[in-house]
Amino acid sequence: MRTLALALAAASLPTLAAAQTVASETPAAAASADAALESDTLAWDFVEGITTEVGPRQAGTEAEKRGRDWSVAWLKANGFANVADEPFQMETWVRGTETAEIVSPYPQPFHVTALGGSASTGPEGITAEVVEFESVAALQAAPAGSLKGKIAYISHSMTPTQDGSQYGFAGPARWVGAGIAASKGAIGSVIKSVGTDHHRNPHAGGTSFPEGVAPIPAGALSLPDAANLERMFDRAKGPVRMKLVLTPRDLGTTTSGNVVGEIVGRDPSLPPVLVACHIDSWDLGTGAIDDGAGCGIVAAAAKHAAAAGQPLRTIRVLFAGAEETGLWGSKAYSAAHIAEPIAVGLESDFGADRIWQFGSNFRESNPDLHAKIAAAVARFGVSNGTGVATGGADINIVRDQNGAIIDLSQDGTRYFDLHHTPDDTLDKIDPAQLRQNVAVWTQVIGILANEPGPIKGE
Amino acid sequence: MRTLALALAAASLPTLAAAQTVASETPAAAASADAALESDTLAWDFVEGITTEVGPRQAGTEAEKRGRDWSVAWLKANGFANVADEPFQMETWVRGTETAEIVSPYPQPFHVTALGGSASTGPEGITAEVVEFESVAALQAAPAGSLKGKIAYISHSMTPTQDGSQYGFAGPARWVGAGIAASKGAIGSVIKSVGTDHHRNPHAGGTSFPEGVAPIPAGALSLPDAANLERMFDRAKGPVRMKLVLTPRDLGTTTSGNVVGEIVGRDPSLPPVLVACHIDSWDLGTGAIDDGAGCGIVAAAAKHAAAAGQPLRTIRVLFAGAEETGLWGSKAYSAAHIAEPIAVGLESDFGADRIWQFGSNFRESNPDLHAKIAAAVARFGVSNGTGVATGGADINIVRDQNGAIIDLSQDGTRYFDLHHTPDDTLDKIDPAQLRQNVAVWTQVIGILANEPGPIKGE
Repeated sequence: MRTLALALAAASLPTLAAAQTVASETPAAAASADAALESDTLAWDFVEGITTEVGPRQAGTEAEKRGRDWSVAWLKANGFANVADEPFQMETWVRGTETAEIVSPYPQPFHVTALGGSASTGPEGITAEVVEFESVAALQAAPAGSLKGKIAYISHSMTPTQDGSQYGFAGPARWVGAGIAASKGAIGSVIKSVGTDHHRNPHAGGTSFPEGVAPIPAGALSLPDAANLERMFDRAKGPVRMKLVLTPRDLGTTTSGNVVGEIVGRDPSLPPVLVACHIDSWDLGTGAIDDGAGCGIVAAAAKHAAAAGQPLRTIRVLFAGAEETGLWGSKAYSAAHIAEPIAVGLESDFGADRIWQFGSNFRESNPDLHAKIAAAVARFGVSNGTGVATGGADINIVRDQNGAIIDLSQDGTRYFDLHHTPDDTLDKIDPAQLRQNVAVWTQVIGILANEPGPIKGE
Repeated sequence: MRTLALALAAASLPTLAAAQTVASETPAAAASADAALESDTLAWDFVEGITTEVGPRQAGTEAEKRGRDWSVAWLKANGFANVADEPFQMETWVRGTETAEIVSPYPQPFHVTALGGSASTGPEGITAEVVEFESVAALQAAPAGSLKGKIAYISHSMTPTQDGSQYGFAGPARWVGAGIAASKGAIGSVIKSVGTDHHRNPHAGGTSFPEGVAPIPAGALSLPDAANLERMFDRAKGPVRMKLVLTPRDLGTTTSGNVVGEIVGRDPSLPPVLVACHIDSWDLGTGAIDDGAGCGIVAAAAKHAAAAGQPLRTIRVLFAGAEETGLWGSKAYSAAHIAEPIAVGLESDFGADRIWQFGSNFRESNPDLHAKIAAAVARFGVSNGTGVATGGADINIVRDQNGAIIDLSQDGTRYFDLHHTPDDTLDKIDPAQLRQNVAVWTQVIGILANEPGPIKGE
């Protein structure tokens, strides 16, 4: 009953009143959003195009450069102004050969991928006993030197969550596991992929090593292989030994870039609305859900919002470069533009499924605008979240400016089935969910870009 | 309404009467089957064991030999008599390096696997224009010599079917496509994998070349890559060029073997019941659903059926070797044992999901036994099919003897998502469905092994 009471309270009269206000104040924005829901093809056009004509776009490589060039051309072809590719420098790591096999007692090949930042085993590989730890905490508790000559394996698991919150739960095994293993003397590490699927696709992603700890070879096993390894531990009478060959290498400093474009507002003196995504992808897939879709969504929505008439404020799209390997582009954008105020920042970087929740960091400071947006997106099945929006990786500049942020939460239930795997391909995108996503973005951008007052409030 | 009338006719009184007969005549077999449905762990034990302790078992290789050795030990440990590994010779082909990439106009890597029997491109690979054909018929219609210097691509598609019937519809692209392409002058061929999934896993499998046509390199693309290639054809202004590297090689003649074991009946002079599967697997996966599960099912059911008391007839299990690369084991078994009559043959080689239909080839010649079995399996949700059973690849001997055959049709809706891919792993098996499968087999074997008269009828 308490739940019902809360639900009734949430659907309160002021919200309904605000919805009527929206209809009268921003009919054009609402109509653009409705049209996007019905028939948007622009976001799909972007993600189909970049995954087909470019494919994987690893940060700092020529493939990412082709992705930026392609995006620049697409933005220009779709009428964006001030389109540019703003270069920055970064450190680039690339994959080499990667194989794993159990050599005893049950010889068979496993599917592995190197984590970004992994050291190389050399072409001959390393062969060593594998020692299992159920969590980062268990690994952390291993005595100093106890992993000397061994390969550490972390068998943490992950469950699908709508809000993606288990990434914070399971992610540390990838983010810091190899570094901890190295600090205990391990000569290599493998983790169960940070993922929720049941396919023979390891999940890539970066790892990092603490100051003073030399990197070791670090890989991720596909989930079926990880399960097989765990069965081997249960069955083996003696040690389980693995041969691991990972030959990634550092390319040193290379050039990446941030692609920007604008729909110029009627009053360019007002701070712009910044809508962001990232244009690079991990190399195993084609960067469809991570994050081709995000760039398609924000660009399509910006254009749809402007179709209702030139907005008051400029809408700036930022396709950040080199997100995956350390937010290089987001940081570079902030450094270059910190003196130029942003009215509000939003990011799309969590796939292409439906948006189910709206949140902002100005619920208290600008309650009318918060309520107005909440009311306007309700008809798309988007609820008004209770948390404080913090934004994503690609809008560092807004956090650095202590600016207004909106989170449009996407359904991430399927996201970690695909994230950073070879399976991040176009066929995983559901066009109907993508259209809902674009419609919500169109509605929100339409309101923000026509908001005369300071968005975070006075 | 006609459908309803048919359904009512099928559920006719004679069937219900037969069910009562079963309960009185073979209560022990029924009890064993019910127990298997509730709590079988033996089939799972087999498939978990062989996929974990052996893994892939490609025909004619030392990995298959390890699989046979493991199976011999398992059968002995589980009380089977006359366990043996009966050797035969075969021609063996093994995979090498395999990569594919589009080199122009949209460079990106694709996931490919070589088809069994493919020629090698050499380590440098081949690079050529790719020409699309929508079907084998379209390829067949291409003028002689028209594919000179090109790579043929066949873009047939396949839809999941419960009975697996689309394998006959889509399979020819793999079975004969490369040979037709070669005969038209192609220097290589790739097909859309014969599969129904949406993952980055190509489906392996054999192809063959006609007499007088020299083999060419022949691969299968994963379904997302095939879809990407087709989008490229739609978008490209000029030719789409692919670099293909496939370096398989023929090992010449090697030794494989058939593993056999028996539950000896009370009257060894009666022809035995033969229950078969195959022990080899394609090398990309671990041979869980194809066909570790099948061997687990038939062996577990044979043992459960015998738990009700020593059967009248001997139950012989045949784990055929080298099915995948040309039914070498099934043919060798028939050649070696053709003079020893088999009472009835059954095979399990279509995954581990539920059995939904029973059929025989003695409905007319031994209607009482057919009806008795149909009635006995009805309680497991298994219907009485209207077709004539023809058996599977591993029971050549029974067809060669013109003997009695039973088909226990499994639900194949998911089968071609996994078939011949790296994803053929233990986690794809649903223990509840596997138990139903074993229960039905237990019931059927229990009846057959206690049938005194000739099973196909006089």
